[in-house]
Amino acid sequence: MVPRYSRPEMVAIWSPETKFRIWFEIEAHACDAQAALGVIPQEAAEAVWTAKDVAFDVARIDAIEAEVKHDVIAFLTHLAEHVGPMARYVHQGLTSSDVLDTCLNVQLTRAADILLADLDALLAALKARALEHRNTVCIGRSHGIHAEPTTFGLKMAQAYAEFARARARLVAARAEVATCAISGAVGTFASIDPAVEAHVAARLGLAIEPISTQVIPRDRHAAFFACLAVIASSVERLATEVRHLQRTEVLEAEEYFSPGQKGSSAMPHKRNPVLTENLTGLARLVRGYAMPAMENVALWHERDISHSSVERAIGPDATITLDFALARLTGVIAKLVVYPEAMERNLNKFRGLVHSQGVLLALTQAGLSREDSYRLVQRNAMKVWEQGADFLTELKADAEITAALDGATLDAIFDLARHTRQVDAIFARVFGEA
Amino acid sequence: MVPRYSRPEMVAIWSPETKFRIWFEIEAHACDAQAALGVIPQEAAEAVWTAKDVAFDVARIDAIEAEVKHDVIAFLTHLAEHVGPMARYVHQGLTSSDVLDTCLNVQLTRAADILLADLDALLAALKARALEHRNTVCIGRSHGIHAEPTTFGLKMAQAYAEFARARARLVAARAEVATCAISGAVGTFASIDPAVEAHVAARLGLAIEPISTQVIPRDRHAAFFACLAVIASSVERLATEVRHLQRTEVLEAEEYFSPGQKGSSAMPHKRNPVLTENLTGLARLVRGYAMPAMENVALWHERDISHSSVERAIGPDATITLDFALARLTGVIAKLVVYPEAMERNLNKFRGLVHSQGVLLALTQAGLSREDSYRLVQRNAMKVWEQGADFLTELKADAEITAALDGATLDAIFDLARHTRQVDAIFARVFGEA
Amino acid sequence: MVPRYSRPEMVAIWSPETKFRIWFEIEAHACDAQAALGVIPQEAAEAVWTAKDVAFDVARIDAIEAEVKHDVIAFLTHLAEHVGPMARYVHQGLTSSDVLDTCLNVQLTRAADILLADLDALLAALKARALEHRNTVCIGRSHGIHAEPTTFGLKMAQAYAEFARARARLVAARAEVATCAISGAVGTFASIDPAVEAHVAARLGLAIEPISTQVIPRDRHAAFFACLAVIASSVERLATEVRHLQRTEVLEAEEYFSPGQKGSSAMPHKRNPVLTENLTGLARLVRGYAMPAMENVALWHERDISHSSVERAIGPDATITLDFALARLTGVIAKLVVYPEAMERNLNKFRGLVHSQGVLLALTQAGLSREDSYRLVQRNAMKVWEQGADFLTELKADAEITAALDGATLDAIFDLARHTRQVDAIFARVFGEA
Amino acid sequence: MVPRYSRPEMVAIWSPETKFRIWFEIEAHACDAQAALGVIPQEAAEAVWTAKDVAFDVARIDAIEAEVKHDVIAFLTHLAEHVGPMARYVHQGLTSSDVLDTCLNVQLTRAADILLADLDALLAALKARALEHRNTVCIGRSHGIHAEPTTFGLKMAQAYAEFARARARLVAARAEVATCAISGAVGTFASIDPAVEAHVAARLGLAIEPISTQVIPRDRHAAFFACLAVIASSVERLATEVRHLQRTEVLEAEEYFSPGQKGSSAMPHKRNPVLTENLTGLARLVRGYAMPAMENVALWHERDISHSSVERAIGPDATITLDFALARLTGVIAKLVVYPEAMERNLNKFRGLVHSQGVLLALTQAGLSREDSYRLVQRNAMKVWEQGADFLTELKADAEITAALDGATLDAIFDLARHTRQVDAIFARVFGEA
Repeated sequence: MVPRYSRPEMVAIWSPETKFRIWFEIEAHACDAQAALGVIPQEAAEAVWTAKDVAFDVARIDAIEAEVKHDVIAFLTHLAEHVGPMARYVHQGLTSSDVLDTCLNVQLTRAADILLADLDALLAALKARALEHRNTVCIGRSHGIHAEPTTFGLKMAQAYAEFARARARLVAARAEVATCAISGAVGTFASIDPAVEAHVAARLGLAIEPISTQVIPRDRHAAFFACLAVIASSVERLATEVRHLQRTEVLEAEEYFSPGQKGSSAMPHKRNPVLTENLTGLARLVRGYAMPAMENVALWHERDISHSSVERAIGPDATITLDFALARLTGVIAKLVVYPEAMERNLNKFRGLVHSQGVLLALTQAGLSREDSYRLVQRNAMKVWEQGADFLTELKADAEITAALDGATLDAIFDLARHTRQVDAIFARVFGEA
Repeated sequence: MVPRYSRPEMVAIWSPETKFRIWFEIEAHACDAQAALGVIPQEAAEAVWTAKDVAFDVARIDAIEAEVKHDVIAFLTHLAEHVGPMARYVHQGLTSSDVLDTCLNVQLTRAADILLADLDALLAALKARALEHRNTVCIGRSHGIHAEPTTFGLKMAQAYAEFARARARLVAARAEVATCAISGAVGTFASIDPAVEAHVAARLGLAIEPISTQVIPRDRHAAFFACLAVIASSVERLATEVRHLQRTEVLEAEEYFSPGQKGSSAMPHKRNPVLTENLTGLARLVRGYAMPAMENVALWHERDISHSSVERAIGPDATITLDFALARLTGVIAKLVVYPEAMERNLNKFRGLVHSQGVLLALTQAGLSREDSYRLVQRNAMKVWEQGADFLTELKADAEITAALDGATLDAIFDLARHTRQVDAIFARVFGEA
Repeated sequence: MVPRYSRPEMVAIWSPETKFRIWFEIEAHACDAQAALGVIPQEAAEAVWTAKDVAFDVARIDAIEAEVKHDVIAFLTHLAEHVGPMARYVHQGLTSSDVLDTCLNVQLTRAADILLADLDALLAALKARALEHRNTVCIGRSHGIHAEPTTFGLKMAQAYAEFARARARLVAARAEVATCAISGAVGTFASIDPAVEAHVAARLGLAIEPISTQVIPRDRHAAFFACLAVIASSVERLATEVRHLQRTEVLEAEEYFSPGQKGSSAMPHKRNPVLTENLTGLARLVRGYAMPAMENVALWHERDISHSSVERAIGPDATITLDFALARLTGVIAKLVVYPEAMERNLNKFRGLVHSQGVLLALTQAGLSREDSYRLVQRNAMKVWEQGADFLTELKADAEITAALDGATLDAIFDLARHTRQVDAIFARVFGEA
Repeated sequence: MVPRYSRPEMVAIWSPETKFRIWFEIEAHACDAQAALGVIPQEAAEAVWTAKDVAFDVARIDAIEAEVKHDVIAFLTHLAEHVGPMARYVHQGLTSSDVLDTCLNVQLTRAADILLADLDALLAALKARALEHRNTVCIGRSHGIHAEPTTFGLKMAQAYAEFARARARLVAARAEVATCAISGAVGTFASIDPAVEAHVAARLGLAIEPISTQVIPRDRHAAFFACLAVIASSVERLATEVRHLQRTEVLEAEEYFSPGQKGSSAMPHKRNPVLTENLTGLARLVRGYAMPAMENVALWHERDISHSSVERAIGPDATITLDFALARLTGVIAKLVVYPEAMERNLNKFRGLVHSQGVLLALTQAGLSREDSYRLVQRNAMKVWEQGADFLTELKADAEITAALDGATLDAIFDLARHTRQVDAIFARVFGEA
């Protein structure tokens, strides 16, 4: 976790305070269930809840852990300092992993909830810009080379559709990790009734883990972090688009540059897309965290603890980084300065050549062979390319062309409206509008 | 693709023959739709279908491609050799990527269908072994160290639940890539009616891609390959379990070893878990393929072609390798030789010490403090550990113990049935049985 | 291995024919050493060499392997068909891994030799273009935004320096895997004299593996494949540079486009940097292969065979792909079409603004405060940016500027020679020239 | 960076205080060189050094950065608060990256120095244990299955050789990143003399970067982090060995378990290899950090800043994690509790069957055919395997065997000394002893 790429709400999920609070809730709910089953006295369960509003002393717990070398025992020892003798009924029949794994899943589902809200904000920003620039025509580029016209709104709509998919994936990934296991030493419920698990799960808003083996299986977490990695890759895609549009020679859009930002006006051309470059790097990080998550799956037998160090790092790192990245990307999109005139200027750079494919197609449809169509387009295109002529003018002056296509047909081919006429239909697919 | 780790059905999906067959279908269906729209003559569409049963000549197409340096044009040229002059109506308004990307998605969905069938076979094998060994008790191990008893059936049931999740993920991943795009140069439908896409999609059993930009967005494919990588990690988990169980000192289960297999009886102890070791390696490969798939997402603007070389490699490699791995794993599980006597022998290695946690818990529940309970268990456990005594015998001879727990209670703690009593409940969760 | 991204010389290294040839040499050299030690008869060693020119029958060996399920035994059985009864002395005291691992290392060192030659060719191409364009001035860009002038020769020189480092790394990586182990079942030489290993190593041009454990340790191979991955990343960097330079709006350089290449002149603007896009994808693949190589290191105890399936895939895939990529990149660089006029045009896009930093520095050195310098530059820069004025003209007309910097000083700041005066010094560092 | 997996010396390298201290040194040395060149006044250079012992105020610098949004300018502003008006001569002709990149390389080389010391400590521990257990015989295992005898000292010697290679790689990787660049806006030295770079490099113990482009090229850093990833994989190998040896059924060695460690004696069998499991997880993390480092190589043109966020994370994370892992591993090895009796017991588990290969070989060398040798060994081996007989006894009672091999020969085959006789020779290779 790099502080400058962190937002407090997500950071808080991973604080020791939050962790101990969740541990407390798991233990206290488990006591309620055990009391209901008659395994422990009702007053023991009630006594535990007296610590409900305690701010657990992290330093104290750490000090105990340094001695007993066991984090859950350290916490329980500290809890007993608040709860008193009834504390001996706490954690009965549970294994440490019941607490640790269920807590991790609570943290991951909370993190997912923040990320889902992040995605909602990003989707809203993308939709707003898509609608705003629905018909703002710009050149579409394949291979970085001018292809045919598209609109800036379509760029935003494509990103919207991509992040809508990301959202759906994250909802599924959240469900994968939203499970609770209270099943004892190797998951057999030998010392605890499954009703305890059911109760704790219900109170924490989790599903029960159908079968655990001391640990909740790590394929769930691998799927979760892989999902974050794919989302990060989509962040990179959109960030890369902005970086390209802001290139000096393209300059069709720019990250917002606050008036006070140093260096802006002594070198007015030097406004760097630093936010989206930063996002590109953050995407690499989140992607990198997926590999150790996948290597965590193959634990030995009923469990080993090799996953733990990995999760202590990537649990916070992946969620905090992606949260920051999504929020930053939302800001970039919402405030992106768009230059429709520059888009038009770039589009017209080659005086109509972007319509050559349209002419080719029309000639073929008019009955010419592919070879003839090609030859006719070619000889006019080369005049544009080599002599700077205007493509439409040349075509209209070419008798072989006009024999096949009249002026109105040629005008229609060069009409940008041809490229925007399906925009509403596409928007309806993406945004569900009429 | 390594031949020895390949199965013909999956390999066939990635053959040039299959690819050209799919290309043909896309083009032919598109012609039908174009004819219905009146864009091309009905007889042109019909003429194309005359090539329906043609076995396209891969070498011929390759030869043309070597000349024109464009794979789709090479195919269309060859197609014209079969279809005749009407071939000039083929591909009108389409861009190469419409064909290539839709074809890739057809291949990936077919690959997914094979993998789903593989998973079904694996699930069936796991369920059969789970039911067979539902109550075959063995020691559960955490950290590779004996913990408490579990059953071999529970191990199989856990794997079943894990691969059932894998299956659900793959169904979702299949849906991600089951889309069709016929949207023209930069996805604006400037030269083609969306109805063509709708028709082709329907005929191929795909959904329409709501918004494409010459290419179908690669976040879909990244999610697909990431899903395969997570499944491979689950393969590794189960393979690792078998490898551990087959270790000389453990030997609770063995991969089936055919009578004729070289070396078996001159070194009867030397039966190596080579299949599951092999699966461990294959899992690494499939995992590794996920990274380039994720890096493929951030294409430039409306598309660049950097993804193509990646997909030519990992498309076949990831699906063929995982198909082989799942089939091999199914065989390993179905034929796994299980040694219940060895399980029992290992379980009893420490003469009852595996029940020490149960005794501790019972003492605490009987009202002793944690510290006292611990001290009592400890002094008896050390006799077992150091002198080879029997734990239950020692406990029954310890007056402080028997003051808290009578003989029947102690017997109950040492009763293995305590560890299997919830097996049916867990099986009901996993397999949905009564 | 994708055939279209493969070159025959590298592919041949990984053919079964090559593998069996290497196996033969290992066995035959080992027999010589064993005969010299008196372990086997001299005539046995000589008999083996009678098969020196045999083209081993791969199909026959495969058929035997299908039966005995052991590749080395299958080969030895086939070898005996050529050598006769003396064949029973072959392989005595060796373990299969002695042959397999030493063979893999022979293949990897040969692959490294090809890659080193590839790098030499690439370095030669880079040097030639660097010298050719030593002083071809172009704008340097940070963040994709115009910064200060540099030269195209410096771009090539930087790439040269980077691939010279790549070469040095590969020499080291080659040495890592250039070892031979003939040490028996678990590496103790219990059944074979170390002199055999020494002899075989010497004949194959390898070092002895100081300590093996049936297998040659896989950290060596992980380092090797990691080295290839880093080189691939450098390929991606240079490929990305070309892709950027070929963008429609930049167009300072272009991949060579053969006259016959389809589509070139009907859309003369549409020359796509498909080779370098392809290289970008190939780089992702080679990078991805490094992860499984690293996971191969942690074999169990003296060895497990999980590494084998990984190496059967990535051994060929990584080396063949990188070989192809380096050769393709060399072609791209050697034939790259460079447009110095376009470079000059882009450089002058902002009428001198790229020199604003130089003016700022000169003002500061002339004694003005940072703040005052900044204010003076800013007010003139904004006239250029907003009104299209010429920067130098404006500065010379600004009394506060001229009070600090006279005309000659300003001219010197705007002299491009200021940016090229150290080019020779840098070239001397890179190419070791005077 | 996870605090519990961090050691203070390495953490300190990455503190803001250290970073600003290095920045100061770079700037101050650059001023000395500029003064020597006559570019700035001598007294300016001297004035800067008055801040030599200043503890820079991180909070103050952060506050300035929040305003100016530029970290280096914020630092220089704060520096001016200490140095006074002469501060305006600081940083003249430098670009921010000159400071940032050179600083990063100073940090990485310091980190490498700590890691090299870590490796030295680990090597010392391994050597000590190797010498201690040079001839402590234990069973060697391939595939987790008993193969032939080896010694525990050889296991340690193999690890020693592996980490000696790791050390050599790290020395090379350190040299890769031990460079200094002070070359101005795009690396052309347009505004600064190369002599400044040479001076600063010399004072910081770095080499000059032969050619930079505002940034020091990131292939250097990719190679560095890839090196750490390979070392981490070796950590995982040795950690995995310990985990296996500590398995309940094997128990040939154990991590040291301090007397006070909770739970030890109530469950004396339950000593978990938690340190080496932890190391396994840490290795996954360090491996994962290599991927983003490789993706950092392909910066755009002369630089983009996407690498920066990656390095802010993995710079500390990779070095701190590996430092902790190496130190922890050294402790594990130094204090590992080794059980030679258990090794002997496991070795003899199958009553001599581990010598079956030796018998086979001897029979072949005595002139029997492979098939006959095999049949003879097999029929005796099966008696051992199925009836628990003693292998040597059976062989001596088999007339066909004794016809080929006399008793003394058989005894020699079963003599463990056969497996240790080359240990000294191997140790001489590894440790360079006589």
